[in-house]
Amino acid sequence: MKRVYNFNPGPATLPLEVLQEVQAEFLDFDNSGMSIIEISHRSKNYEKVHNQAKADILELMGLGDEYEVLFIQGGASLQFAMIPMNFATKENPGSYALSGIFSTNAYKEAEILGVGQIAASTKAENFRRVPRQDEIKIAPNSAYFHVCYNNTIYGTEYHYIPETNGVPLFADMSSDMLSRPLNFKKFSLIYAGVQKNLGPAGVVVVVVKKSLVEKSLETLPTMLRYDTFYKKNSLFNTPPEFSIYFVGKVAAWIKNCGGLAEMAKRNSRKAEVLYAAIDESNNFYRGHAEKDSRSFMNVTFRLPNEELEKKFVAEALENNLIGVKGHRLVGGLRASIYNSMTLEGVEALADFMKKFRQSNG
Amino acid sequence: MKRVYNFNPGPATLPLEVLQEVQAEFLDFDNSGMSIIEISHRSKNYEKVHNQAKADILELMGLGDEYEVLFIQGGASLQFAMIPMNFATKENPGSYALSGIFSTNAYKEAEILGVGQIAASTKAENFRRVPRQDEIKIAPNSAYFHVCYNNTIYGTEYHYIPETNGVPLFADMSSDMLSRPLNFKKFSLIYAGVQKNLGPAGVVVVVVKKSLVEKSLETLPTMLRYDTFYKKNSLFNTPPEFSIYFVGKVAAWIKNCGGLAEMAKRNSRKAEVLYAAIDESNNFYRGHAEKDSRSFMNVTFRLPNEELEKKFVAEALENNLIGVKGHRLVGGLRASIYNSMTLEGVEALADFMKKFRQSNG
Repeated sequence: MKRVYNFNPGPATLPLEVLQEVQAEFLDFDNSGMSIIEISHRSKNYEKVHNQAKADILELMGLGDEYEVLFIQGGASLQFAMIPMNFATKENPGSYALSGIFSTNAYKEAEILGVGQIAASTKAENFRRVPRQDEIKIAPNSAYFHVCYNNTIYGTEYHYIPETNGVPLFADMSSDMLSRPLNFKKFSLIYAGVQKNLGPAGVVVVVVKKSLVEKSLETLPTMLRYDTFYKKNSLFNTPPEFSIYFVGKVAAWIKNCGGLAEMAKRNSRKAEVLYAAIDESNNFYRGHAEKDSRSFMNVTFRLPNEELEKKFVAEALENNLIGVKGHRLVGGLRASIYNSMTLEGVEALADFMKKFRQSNG
Repeated sequence: MKRVYNFNPGPATLPLEVLQEVQAEFLDFDNSGMSIIEISHRSKNYEKVHNQAKADILELMGLGDEYEVLFIQGGASLQFAMIPMNFATKENPGSYALSGIFSTNAYKEAEILGVGQIAASTKAENFRRVPRQDEIKIAPNSAYFHVCYNNTIYGTEYHYIPETNGVPLFADMSSDMLSRPLNFKKFSLIYAGVQKNLGPAGVVVVVVKKSLVEKSLETLPTMLRYDTFYKKNSLFNTPPEFSIYFVGKVAAWIKNCGGLAEMAKRNSRKAEVLYAAIDESNNFYRGHAEKDSRSFMNVTFRLPNEELEKKFVAEALENNLIGVKGHRLVGGLRASIYNSMTLEGVEALADFMKKFRQSNG
């Protein structure tokens, strides 16, 4: 069987052990005589999977009974709209820190509804860093303060939890969900499209304080109300079973590996290897992100010119290193090294970077 | 490997050949060295799958270039909201025929927005039949006329295409999508949650006249505008790749079987076998649907009393006949016999029905 090192930003590489387990039981799930994709979402077999996935996510995050896990379709992009629809008004707008494309897109949806405010932005610096605490101006009447905690395209992340002075903190963690321990209790709502760190595209994991979602506006369409998902255990209509089932297996895999502390250890080591390859290259490789905002999930860098960048992508491909082309807005290269990327894969890329520099530097 | 006969209404049984094919290539899709769930939605390998699925669906339905296939998350329940949000106004409301629970739920979403009208209803008859043409009163200023073409819970379906006098005809075909040929050109918008006839829950196939979705209201959130999906080939954000890939394989499987004409032949034969088992039972089994509204996808029936119904479900289970309990709103039994249910499975159920009647009649 052919396997490559897949550095794509999402959909992204997933744990081989989990893929193999899913493959093995694909025709007969839990001795039911049915595939997981054929089984009723009202069955006990499925319900067990659904509830275990929820419980494991909360356990990994160190969150208790005051939080709920919701499974919602539509991607983080639909959350960008649901959040202001459910929580913001003209009197109590949503406040946003703009630190990249996705945080800007989140703000735009609030803007369409006329309920968005900008609390900070690093756009003028081409999003090379996230805003510092002293730059963040959250209006006290804000319904929430929204951040994108890790910026996939620019390769930056927050290395501190913003202080909001009592305004509920909301975070898009699509690209760093379950990648390291954090005081998650400081957040009121965390969401993540699963296709980067957790599983197959098709579901968003929303971790939210129950008190926020017990009752939603009755003027909203049913499927855009958080309480529809909360009251029905995310089973109001047929959920994306396969994605949830897979996410559950990945959560269990993380627990078996040693939880978020172990993930953080592995992810830090991987990031160190790549940032060292950049920093020790005598400026042949130049990181896009400022050092104190560097992401340990997405490593972005440029080469001396675009021709070399193209050559790098092509030769990397020949070496089974896939998906290292950067986003067109940043240019250059990007290596996404989520939980499931192995140190072996990262070392293969670092070796390649060294050789490429020696041949082309 | 254990396999049962799965009569669940959805998620439902899927073609064994397709499940096996997906299993075989699950770790290495298209010689990419990645699983289909790990591969970039911007890659050529994925794009080929995505576009082929669209083309095959249109070809099977006999629709040409004036139609587009969209892939949208959120289930048919989100379409219930998106349809009035995109197309209805107070001046030009959406008109609805109520023929069961899902058509009523669709209407309710228009009602929340204050843009819904009822054109017909068979609720007073406990939805034992769909409305007749002469009962349907569509206001001429209607933005569309919406029907649920097959009613999963009640086991009824339309055996005629309603005449709308120029009002665009919209249909929820979640439970009869690609089950038989029809003059689909009479419809302006057809949608189906895929988890009954086409694949794994997590995507809705929307087949729509392009002229309807070229430009949506700018006041709507991005992910609730049809033109977001139309202009970006349903790739504005990460699509639910696995569901779309699987639906593509099922569409190809239908083509290989002989297309919708062959599906209709198989499905009619299966329905005949079960309705015969009901009609020849000397009133031991009593069909819920009136004969001229009988569905050939969902066969609903009662037994002389609830005790016998419970016994039937339990003994069916012992015979590997799964999911025959009816919906609580109708009670009794239901056998869902979508495209992928084999004649062998239906004959096993009919045999069981005969034996059960002999032992308990």
